[in-house]
Amino acid sequence: MKGRPLVSIVSGGLSKFGKLDGKYSREIFLEAVREAFDKCPNLNPRKDIEALFVGQMSESFEHQGHVAPSISDWMGLLPIPATHLEAACASSGVALRQAILSIMSGIYDIVIVGGVEKMTHRSTSDATEYLAMASDFPMEQWNGITFPSLFGLIATAHMERYGTTEEQLAMVAVKNHRHGFLNPKAQLQREITVKQVMESRPVAWPLKLFDCSLISDGASCLVLTKPSLARRYTDTPVDIIGTGQGSGTIGLFERDDITYMQAARSAAKQAYEMAGRKPRNVDVAEVHDCFTIAEIVAYEDLGFCRPGEGGKLIEKGATQLGGRIPVNTSGGLKAKGHPVGATGTAQAYEIYLQLTGQAEQRQVKGAKIGLTHNIGGSGSTGVVHIYKGRS
Amino acid sequence: MKGRPLVSIVSGGLSKFGKLDGKYSREIFLEAVREAFDKCPNLNPRKDIEALFVGQMSESFEHQGHVAPSISDWMGLLPIPATHLEAACASSGVALRQAILSIMSGIYDIVIVGGVEKMTHRSTSDATEYLAMASDFPMEQWNGITFPSLFGLIATAHMERYGTTEEQLAMVAVKNHRHGFLNPKAQLQREITVKQVMESRPVAWPLKLFDCSLISDGASCLVLTKPSLARRYTDTPVDIIGTGQGSGTIGLFERDDITYMQAARSAAKQAYEMAGRKPRNVDVAEVHDCFTIAEIVAYEDLGFCRPGEGGKLIEKGATQLGGRIPVNTSGGLKAKGHPVGATGTAQAYEIYLQLTGQAEQRQVKGAKIGLTHNIGGSGSTGVVHIYKGRS
Repeated sequence: MKGRPLVSIVSGGLSKFGKLDGKYSREIFLEAVREAFDKCPNLNPRKDIEALFVGQMSESFEHQGHVAPSISDWMGLLPIPATHLEAACASSGVALRQAILSIMSGIYDIVIVGGVEKMTHRSTSDATEYLAMASDFPMEQWNGITFPSLFGLIATAHMERYGTTEEQLAMVAVKNHRHGFLNPKAQLQREITVKQVMESRPVAWPLKLFDCSLISDGASCLVLTKPSLARRYTDTPVDIIGTGQGSGTIGLFERDDITYMQAARSAAKQAYEMAGRKPRNVDVAEVHDCFTIAEIVAYEDLGFCRPGEGGKLIEKGATQLGGRIPVNTSGGLKAKGHPVGATGTAQAYEIYLQLTGQAEQRQVKGAKIGLTHNIGGSGSTGVVHIYKGRS
Repeated sequence: MKGRPLVSIVSGGLSKFGKLDGKYSREIFLEAVREAFDKCPNLNPRKDIEALFVGQMSESFEHQGHVAPSISDWMGLLPIPATHLEAACASSGVALRQAILSIMSGIYDIVIVGGVEKMTHRSTSDATEYLAMASDFPMEQWNGITFPSLFGLIATAHMERYGTTEEQLAMVAVKNHRHGFLNPKAQLQREITVKQVMESRPVAWPLKLFDCSLISDGASCLVLTKPSLARRYTDTPVDIIGTGQGSGTIGLFERDDITYMQAARSAAKQAYEMAGRKPRNVDVAEVHDCFTIAEIVAYEDLGFCRPGEGGKLIEKGATQLGGRIPVNTSGGLKAKGHPVGATGTAQAYEIYLQLTGQAEQRQVKGAKIGLTHNIGGSGSTGVVHIYKGRS
């Protein structure tokens, strides 16, 4: 069954990412859904959609739990099953996996899966606290550690062991801003320079302000169906041919080695094996650049280069548009934005655009195989999916 | 495929329910897991278990999100996929459904699914606020409505339309305390009288203190496998033969009729159809008695009696041990306790005990078919499962 389509993406939608004032999650989600429905005129939502899966990280931002039925309600899809998954910043990556498995079970033919987060109405200190809940409480949160400091530790270890430089980290930000400049839905559409990154305010050394992803509002979604039904809905389905999920320690302090992520490596191994593909077969990828160091670690965990060589990979331009393996053509979490619950399916949405020739100015020519890499916490959850366009 | 086993339960565990001071969720979960492993000596956890599914309602109680990998970590099961589902008080009911679908997909052969919540270290007002997050924020929470008041409204409407009485509500509490008295793991093991319920302090009229379920700490889990593999692990597997999930409006104010729950009726219909069974075939059931009125509404939504006749059903004793269809032999949320995330799989655990003859003093003799009914919020999520013992 290697390389066989598990499910097919027949449509997708993405809200504008940024500061979306005066809207609740359920309303932002509808913005993504509207695009997905508009792109798929053969879909009759009330009749066809059998289940909804939603990734969201935190009830705290909006003082609202139980988000999945609040969305199925607002979509007019009651009483279909509406299921919420939480895996910190990998929430909708995990939702995507559960949506795939649910279709594979034979229970559903067609489902909608997405993610959403509304964050910008909160102060930075509130947002930092809510996000920190995804790290270990007794050892990490309690001692005042936040995600920038956890990833600062990872960066320090990577620099110490492999000679990775602050400039190489900065190059990740520069590349992703260059890509985001081409994405009309990106939160930040402006180019930056290595010098600007290097001179930006330190957040948690060696990470500076421009090494960090954004606090954002936004939503993303996909319409999935069984491969055999996909042509009813579109002439250009994208098949998902590999899925993998892994977990790692909740605390960074528990790891012998913090320069890689066990959860991501395990997820990647499963996904590649299921897809019958190797890292060198990947034409375009979206990876979890919550901080610049995370993208470098992702290159290595995904096998785009050997461990320790991620810094060199960005330096030689291999991962920029036009390079050997363009990464984060959407602008990534760094420039497109990072509404945490929406990120996993937003990555999948970009790959869907790339493999159907809809990526406009940032199109990777001839892209056939895509990959997404979504991380929760400091790597306690990792989810990898592999996609194949149909020609 | 009607009535065909979807998956099999080969073991299960339940922590003591009550006030478990000085323990984190991840530690309480291990108490349930230990029982499940002890009961299943043929299981080699590190080798056999391929995934973990966890229901938990709220990150707020412990200031800890990302609970699933924190548990797979503590269980020593890294890097298996660890997936957290949230559906308010139906979190582990929904986790159970996703675990079933995941096995049916062919991806996993054997998984562990459970739920946990640690609540009692918080003040009653904090707990009430965190729980209220599962209701609609803009219309309900914002106006000060909490779950006792939402269910008070449901009770009032039911009394007005059907003539249900406060005494009938009280009888639900009396029955469940009588059952809980027989369950050594129940939080409250004492019998009460209708008079005591009627004279207890009003919380949200017509609901009084003894009409309300408990604030609890606790965990529950099940080991699930493909039906064809079940005999490797136990001589007495319990097959799950029906699963259903539905959603209803997030706000009570959106409903034309608040005397029933659309989500639960939809879930029940799906589960009965899949199981090829009728309500009259059910020998024992665990239903979601978060408040006494909720059990009466559940009788009706599940078809144990006609709409409006739930009050009479409890009055004539049909749902007590020895009656036609014993309900909540565990003591229910009312007496066993209601650690919200743990409740769905705790209900399934009780049915597993009943269908394998392990329910001791509360055993329903000759029980062959069991049912669980798990509700989230004021009925925005409903999950129903149907179980069959193998003789």
